[in-house]
Amino acid sequence: MIASRFPIDGDRLRRDIEDNAQFGAVPTDEGRGRTVLPGTKPNQRAREHLVDRMIVAGLDVSVDAVGNVAGTWLPEGCDPTAAPVAVGSHLDSVPFGGIFDGPLGVYAGLEAVRALQEAGVTPTRPIQVVSFTGEEGTRFADGVLGSSVAAGLTETETALDRTDDGETLREALTDIGFHGEERLDASDWHAWLELHVEQTDRLEEMGVTAGVVTTIAGSTRLHGTIEGTADHTGTTSMADRTDALAAASEFVLAVERAARTAAESTGTTVATVGELSVDPGVVNVVPGEVEFSIDIRDVEKPVIDRLVTRAEETLTALETDRGVETTLDRPYDVPPAEMAATCRTALHEAGQSLGVETADVHSGAGHDTMQVATVTDTGLLFAPSDGGHSHNPLEWTDWHDCAVTTSLLTEALYTLASDEDSDHR
Amino acid sequence: MIASRFPIDGDRLRRDIEDNAQFGAVPTDEGRGRTVLPGTKPNQRAREHLVDRMIVAGLDVSVDAVGNVAGTWLPEGCDPTAAPVAVGSHLDSVPFGGIFDGPLGVYAGLEAVRALQEAGVTPTRPIQVVSFTGEEGTRFADGVLGSSVAAGLTETETALDRTDDGETLREALTDIGFHGEERLDASDWHAWLELHVEQTDRLEEMGVTAGVVTTIAGSTRLHGTIEGTADHTGTTSMADRTDALAAASEFVLAVERAARTAAESTGTTVATVGELSVDPGVVNVVPGEVEFSIDIRDVEKPVIDRLVTRAEETLTALETDRGVETTLDRPYDVPPAEMAATCRTALHEAGQSLGVETADVHSGAGHDTMQVATVTDTGLLFAPSDGGHSHNPLEWTDWHDCAVTTSLLTEALYTLASDEDSDHR
Repeated sequence: MIASRFPIDGDRLRRDIEDNAQFGAVPTDEGRGRTVLPGTKPNQRAREHLVDRMIVAGLDVSVDAVGNVAGTWLPEGCDPTAAPVAVGSHLDSVPFGGIFDGPLGVYAGLEAVRALQEAGVTPTRPIQVVSFTGEEGTRFADGVLGSSVAAGLTETETALDRTDDGETLREALTDIGFHGEERLDASDWHAWLELHVEQTDRLEEMGVTAGVVTTIAGSTRLHGTIEGTADHTGTTSMADRTDALAAASEFVLAVERAARTAAESTGTTVATVGELSVDPGVVNVVPGEVEFSIDIRDVEKPVIDRLVTRAEETLTALETDRGVETTLDRPYDVPPAEMAATCRTALHEAGQSLGVETADVHSGAGHDTMQVATVTDTGLLFAPSDGGHSHNPLEWTDWHDCAVTTSLLTEALYTLASDEDSDHR
Repeated sequence: MIASRFPIDGDRLRRDIEDNAQFGAVPTDEGRGRTVLPGTKPNQRAREHLVDRMIVAGLDVSVDAVGNVAGTWLPEGCDPTAAPVAVGSHLDSVPFGGIFDGPLGVYAGLEAVRALQEAGVTPTRPIQVVSFTGEEGTRFADGVLGSSVAAGLTETETALDRTDDGETLREALTDIGFHGEERLDASDWHAWLELHVEQTDRLEEMGVTAGVVTTIAGSTRLHGTIEGTADHTGTTSMADRTDALAAASEFVLAVERAARTAAESTGTTVATVGELSVDPGVVNVVPGEVEFSIDIRDVEKPVIDRLVTRAEETLTALETDRGVETTLDRPYDVPPAEMAATCRTALHEAGQSLGVETADVHSGAGHDTMQVATVTDTGLLFAPSDGGHSHNPLEWTDWHDCAVTTSLLTEALYTLASDEDSDHR
């Protein structure tokens, strides 16, 4: 273990993450997977366990109206009226996701606080360990639900009224006992830090353990429909049919082609049709309607906008060529987010003081930090992902790397929460 | 109404079909729809209603092990040991299907028997009105489930062990009270007749009310999978991904292209990818696996086989070009079926004696009659479909056309079930 003035307990951190991995655990041939969708039983158990762990650490736990959990450490002698520094991530996962995406950041934040407590130091600012609701966008919203409310980008009531499978977020949170009160307000924070797995293999390729993010790529999500005519597969001649799935197939390939072309020059562009459902979806009926969603990302907003235009043009062409009717909405649009110099410097300097090499990287994935960045200074630290795998059970980060990056996080957190920060303001 | 020696009651027939349409009725902007999947509550109610109606008509009702319902009329003075003539269709529907596909044939068969009873005639053979289980292939099998068992093409126990959503057919039928005993054996029948809606618009275009089917197109169904790698949409570069949905999109278009090309010369070929599901199917995960089914039909078996080969070749090419892994099974393969001369002649002569024009047509759609045709003489009569619509709530057949074709069915049924048939044997 590296020498630090605030030594963290790597085994305790690992135990927290492994305990959390049991909630929603799924069978898998390789790796370790879990399915923890917001407002479900596994999510309830993961949340309850976090609350227990926060209480053991002496934190004052609160839950806001959209289920964001915050555990506040008010060190003896700190200024309780000072703007707190917050640290955390999320506990939810994609279906059959990995065990690090989210939980590492939450439990690293908690471990950082425990390390500061055990070192007997007194930051001048309160520290909050935070777990945001619904980062992955599997239910109720397209993603970063809780942080979007905390940043004031989505109204609390709007978020609570959102439905999935006929259930509102309000009902789902009430069911699991996490529909609390008021709103966790990120604009109250002096700064925010998040540790997350990188989800690609750049750090691994560079042989560097800690990535300090410069920019989080912007992310746009589109929802669309293609409407044809459901008819009998045996009696509708090839010439007479308006097949929604055949039209959608042209669309999927056009999106892929446009993103590949853009990526040749940018190196950062990605676009994906990840959801596609066919109605009625039975063997002997020509598909009548297809619903789909697209995810487009880049560090430059104009590149994203050009791909959206290309998608619209493709649908218009399909209306003419195939006689389908189409719609395309853009319910989710987060611009690229720059990380704050104060936070980046604190993270790099933490690496220097601990003798750990750090590297500037950009984030292709969206994170709660994107939302928080619209209202306060933010920093995002990456730990290496084995083989770059993420959002599946092969996602893995070496336990030693988890501990090293948590040590950096602890150092930077102390800097930002104490007078040491004054140099950087 | 046309003059007939066995006048049918068009209003009674209509009431039967409209009463049946209430079971599983679905809301729809236009037309009338219903969802009646085998072994569900709406299916139970439809079956119970049919049994009631059969009992009112004095039929002896039996239910076999796979839920096929038969109502036997043993006219006073007929030969109870003679091979019966059977008539009927099915009560199940596709999701959001129409109200005529199936029920017209079942209730027309019942109306034919009532008309013969009321005319006071005595056929020499018993007559059975039959409703087969699971014609549409929405659950437990790819289609013609009950008739396949009745024709001895599928073992009773094999059919009963089939599952859908974790439930066996045996359990589903037991739940709704229609898991009876023994096996309805179609090879015992002297002949079989089915009245069905045409499901295309040829009769309407010709201005002919009654279509006498010459051949039912063969139908092959394939189930396949395409496996790529589920990964994070934001962090997996376009070059690094193996997107199962993009590969599947190429496949869907290749199937469509091959069928269009074949249809240019045959005029009868169709192929459809009607089912396609994406796993995990969320906005921010590159699709890891796609499952699909294809339906291929033609009146010539070699044409179907060529399209299957083309589908296999396309998947092989995708494995090379995109690095996906693929599978393709052929669980359902029914060759083209010729209708019997005796039955076709009886139907055409019925038209002549009633002054109703008949036309030879082929059937693009599969029917229970295909299966029955492997063990006895069969005839299939079509009533016109408004605009050719079927398998959706726009499916419609004029009530007058229902009555006229039911009159032809009655006449032909009497011919086949009485000494009048001897000329044609």
